[in-house]
Amino acid sequence: MSAPASNLTIDADRLWSTIIETAHFGGTEKGGVRRLTLSEEDRQVRDWFRAACEAAGCTVSVDGLGNMFALRPGKDMTKPPLGIGSHLDTQPTGGKFDGILGVMAALEVVRTLNDAGIETEAPICVCNWTNEEGSRFAPAMMGSAGYVADLPVSDILARTDAEGISVGAALDAIGYRGTEEVGARKFSGFLELHIEQGPILEAEGLPIGVVEHGQGIIWYDGRISGFESHTGSTPMHLRKDALAALSEIVLAIEALAKAHGPNAVGSVGEAVIARPSRNVIPGEIAFSGEFRTPDAAILDALDKALQTQVKEIAARRRVDIRLDTIWRKEPTHFDPAMTGAIAAAADRLGLPHRPIVSGAGHDSFHLATVVPTAMIFVPCKDGVSHNELESAKPEECAAGANVLLHAVLAVAGGGA
Amino acid sequence: MSAPASNLTIDADRLWSTIIETAHFGGTEKGGVRRLTLSEEDRQVRDWFRAACEAAGCTVSVDGLGNMFALRPGKDMTKPPLGIGSHLDTQPTGGKFDGILGVMAALEVVRTLNDAGIETEAPICVCNWTNEEGSRFAPAMMGSAGYVADLPVSDILARTDAEGISVGAALDAIGYRGTEEVGARKFSGFLELHIEQGPILEAEGLPIGVVEHGQGIIWYDGRISGFESHTGSTPMHLRKDALAALSEIVLAIEALAKAHGPNAVGSVGEAVIARPSRNVIPGEIAFSGEFRTPDAAILDALDKALQTQVKEIAARRRVDIRLDTIWRKEPTHFDPAMTGAIAAAADRLGLPHRPIVSGAGHDSFHLATVVPTAMIFVPCKDGVSHNELESAKPEECAAGANVLLHAVLAVAGGGA
Repeated sequence: MSAPASNLTIDADRLWSTIIETAHFGGTEKGGVRRLTLSEEDRQVRDWFRAACEAAGCTVSVDGLGNMFALRPGKDMTKPPLGIGSHLDTQPTGGKFDGILGVMAALEVVRTLNDAGIETEAPICVCNWTNEEGSRFAPAMMGSAGYVADLPVSDILARTDAEGISVGAALDAIGYRGTEEVGARKFSGFLELHIEQGPILEAEGLPIGVVEHGQGIIWYDGRISGFESHTGSTPMHLRKDALAALSEIVLAIEALAKAHGPNAVGSVGEAVIARPSRNVIPGEIAFSGEFRTPDAAILDALDKALQTQVKEIAARRRVDIRLDTIWRKEPTHFDPAMTGAIAAAADRLGLPHRPIVSGAGHDSFHLATVVPTAMIFVPCKDGVSHNELESAKPEECAAGANVLLHAVLAVAGGGA
Repeated sequence: MSAPASNLTIDADRLWSTIIETAHFGGTEKGGVRRLTLSEEDRQVRDWFRAACEAAGCTVSVDGLGNMFALRPGKDMTKPPLGIGSHLDTQPTGGKFDGILGVMAALEVVRTLNDAGIETEAPICVCNWTNEEGSRFAPAMMGSAGYVADLPVSDILARTDAEGISVGAALDAIGYRGTEEVGARKFSGFLELHIEQGPILEAEGLPIGVVEHGQGIIWYDGRISGFESHTGSTPMHLRKDALAALSEIVLAIEALAKAHGPNAVGSVGEAVIARPSRNVIPGEIAFSGEFRTPDAAILDALDKALQTQVKEIAARRRVDIRLDTIWRKEPTHFDPAMTGAIAAAADRLGLPHRPIVSGAGHDSFHLATVVPTAMIFVPCKDGVSHNELESAKPEECAAGANVLLHAVLAVAGGGA
């Protein structure tokens, strides 16, 4: 690798303008974005992205799942390119930054290198992964899952939305079922800039998070069966109160996560009482629960402890409790050389940073299974994401893009 | 009072036949009854009841709220009659016994006295109170509420059902807006036989409960406002989890009720998470809660303790909690002479009994505010009520009716 152009910075105004300009594709009245994957709005932003990349001298190709790759040549074209990017689809009531910042910052890196006349050693490839959000088609991170062969392409193409439209048909409808074989595009590494979608950086006043791990996740579906009876005429000792049992489970999950801190988290997100009534003791409740931690051994310990406590609660309260593990994802550990390059880039720019764990899932989790990968986080207002109120400041976006620029220069080899 | 006819018993088969026969008016496929107040099915059972009472020598009158009074003359017609009875309306998916047993047993007492040629000193009046259930028109116990002037008659007549039909119009539609002034019918006392609607008698193997108190009730509506955030990216110490706060409240209500046992009860019956999602920390929850106890001082203490604990939970968890008292009903204390007559009747019949508290509301709670009143409970299967599965055995119904018979003889004065 050659010495980086140490005082180079991206054009913060241009980056911000592309974010604001493209937010019109699916823009909502509240200032958010509704751009479901493979929708007409997604086609519009994809067309914009293709044209912008081509205008920046890149060659754009599309694979069989609609994943888009904009290649900027390097000095040594025998080297696989360094992938940078994220996704352009949003939640049904999403914001302007989730995924979008990562793609636009990657484009801005290319434009900055162009303006400075810098040719990197390895090529650079700006990526837009299909259906990261998973709102229209399940699962989330679908395009990168197909890319790393975590799911068969044929399986993905057959998935349908709520209206019965398949991924394949939706790709055809917007003209984005490409000819490139899925997974054929090889990278030497991958870097993704993303808003944190959490409150830690903002709370600590830090502009940069170096994402070292992705949480392992265990998801539960639960059902408590007690006995519905009259709240007035059933003595306390004869009750089989499903809500009281759930309450103990909620607090047990919370206490277990806290006891395995600081990075373990756990919660119950959904709980529905069957036939609720003010004067009927809840007899049946369905709920969902989860634990997340970057440590697989802790994930095991949390699961085991919860199962034990649930058995005890069920026996003591004489209720039936089913607790089924419906999904388990092992923790992601990003590449130390890549996280090191990010930290060094931030240091070079004088931007304070901290190591951080990604609680949400990202395409980089899939990429990390095949190439050295890492992520950069920047703060977002109040940690809010997946919401039209999602917000980040121009200078926060620029700081992240500058770290991405210098990490790219370090990893891909920045020459004058 | 003259000496009772100590070996007299009701006709258990006849009582059971009337219960089964009248269950056809609104009978459901599952063996329950759907007989909403002032419906066509209610008219049918009212017509049956009027004809049966007249056939038993009673004079039937109807007041302006449809409350029905079947008077059996006594030796001393200057004495106000002893009221006995309950209600014939049911829940939308109700059972064959709730209310109905009390009316049919009262009719059976009259028939038994007729067969035995017994004329009581005071007259007896078999009552069918309008809209005890409160399912079609709110509030429950409406007819007896009007009778004791707890609610103005004009107010009651104007109440409407979900289709906008008023009580007055519904009374007219089935021909049961009577001419008797509401409240003009005076009683010397009131006795009501009812299924327990709870599990205590069955659990203890006792055929008779002597209802000494009706629970005082406090009803709450609550709302917890935390903050919705991503379950994966929000560290435990930055969460404002509304469901965890609710869980503490549920367990606090349970613990407080247990600490004020054995007659205090408390629970949360409803809890609805706004915008629930598996990977979103619950930010807002609406819930209902209640305490019941036959002791007004304990009701005060429970309320005060809960309010204190809720404040502590809100402060510690940095969530907002509103807890509004939407209803408070003071405890009912039944007349000791009346409960004594019931206990003595059970003793005379060799039926084991215990004092019991009524957790559910009954017309007798209203009657108790104007005349000496008490209630008799008999077991019901699994304590289930307000359900098509509601069940009581013929011998259990007969035992209750026999206790009612002998209490009537004692209170009204049974002569040969």
